[in-house]
Amino acid sequence: MIQQIDHIGIAVKSLDATVPYYRDALGLGEPHIEEVPTQKVRVAMFDVAGVHIELLEPTSPESAIAKAIEKKGEGIHHIAFKTNDIAGNISQAKDAGLIVLNDPPVPGAHNTQVTFLHPKCTFGVLTEFCQHPGGCGCGH
Amino acid sequence: MIQQIDHIGIAVKSLDATVPYYRDALGLGEPHIEEVPTQKVRVAMFDVAGVHIELLEPTSPESAIAKAIEKKGEGIHHIAFKTNDIAGNISQAKDAGLIVLNDPPVPGAHNTQVTFLHPKCTFGVLTEFCQHPGGCGCGH
Ligand SMILES: [Co+2]
Ligand SMILES: [Co+2]
Repeated sequence: MIQQIDHIGIAVKSLDATVPYYRDALGLGEPHIEEVPTQKVRVAMFDVAGVHIELLEPTSPESAIAKAIEKKGEGIHHIAFKTNDIAGNISQAKDAGLIVLNDPPVPGAHNTQVTFLHPKCTFGVLTEFCQHPGGCGCGH
Repeated sequence: MIQQIDHIGIAVKSLDATVPYYRDALGLGEPHIEEVPTQKVRVAMFDVAGVHIELLEPTSPESAIAKAIEKKGEGIHHIAFKTNDIAGNISQAKDAGLIVLNDPPVPGAHNTQVTFLHPKCTFGVLTEFCQHPGGCGCGH
């Protein structure tokens, strides 16, 4: 079951260039920085009352984020929903005829398990399900 | 000061076509439907643990949403931050050299006052500040 919006993923060319906008001009505070080798990105996470803004900088031209920037420029890349039952969401999505990109789920940032729904079937919105370790959905 | 993410605005051609995906395939429940004549949109709002997914259907070809769909297709359109001091956020944004599209703010859905930052200065992310009536930020 979906519990909350976990994060909004934003494709950026450079964390160094964009972090000051979110930190200072919006006043969102210091981000947590993490590298996610499986997705070939470096991530800056801002905690906004429990929902994260994740700035995603590609670490390789092979990264999906690098390709997205090449195709569409920088900008909002995906929405992630926090679930306590990613297997249930995957089967619900398949029953609805959606294309599930990772089944079984793959490792995301912060030791999560994640999967994506293809935007072709979700009216243009790349949609992620994200389950935190322990499945308690508490975010830790 | 920014208090939380208020909503994620998603440009859609048709609420009738997209509401079932969010309501049933994602299981987000019944949306609140509202027309916002000042922005020439009909909006379906899903409450996801206090953060709203807003599906925006243009009611006129002159709507900014109609133009966004024409240019880029359906998809995520903007992020809105809830603030209790929209005037303060506007002056902070101007101090940072950002382009504020509505100063003073204009009426949004749910009797809010809203303004937008031009995506040219925010690394491709159309960004909204949104203040609820009373300014208490409680969302009512
Ligand atoms: Co993500
Ligand atoms: Co909005």
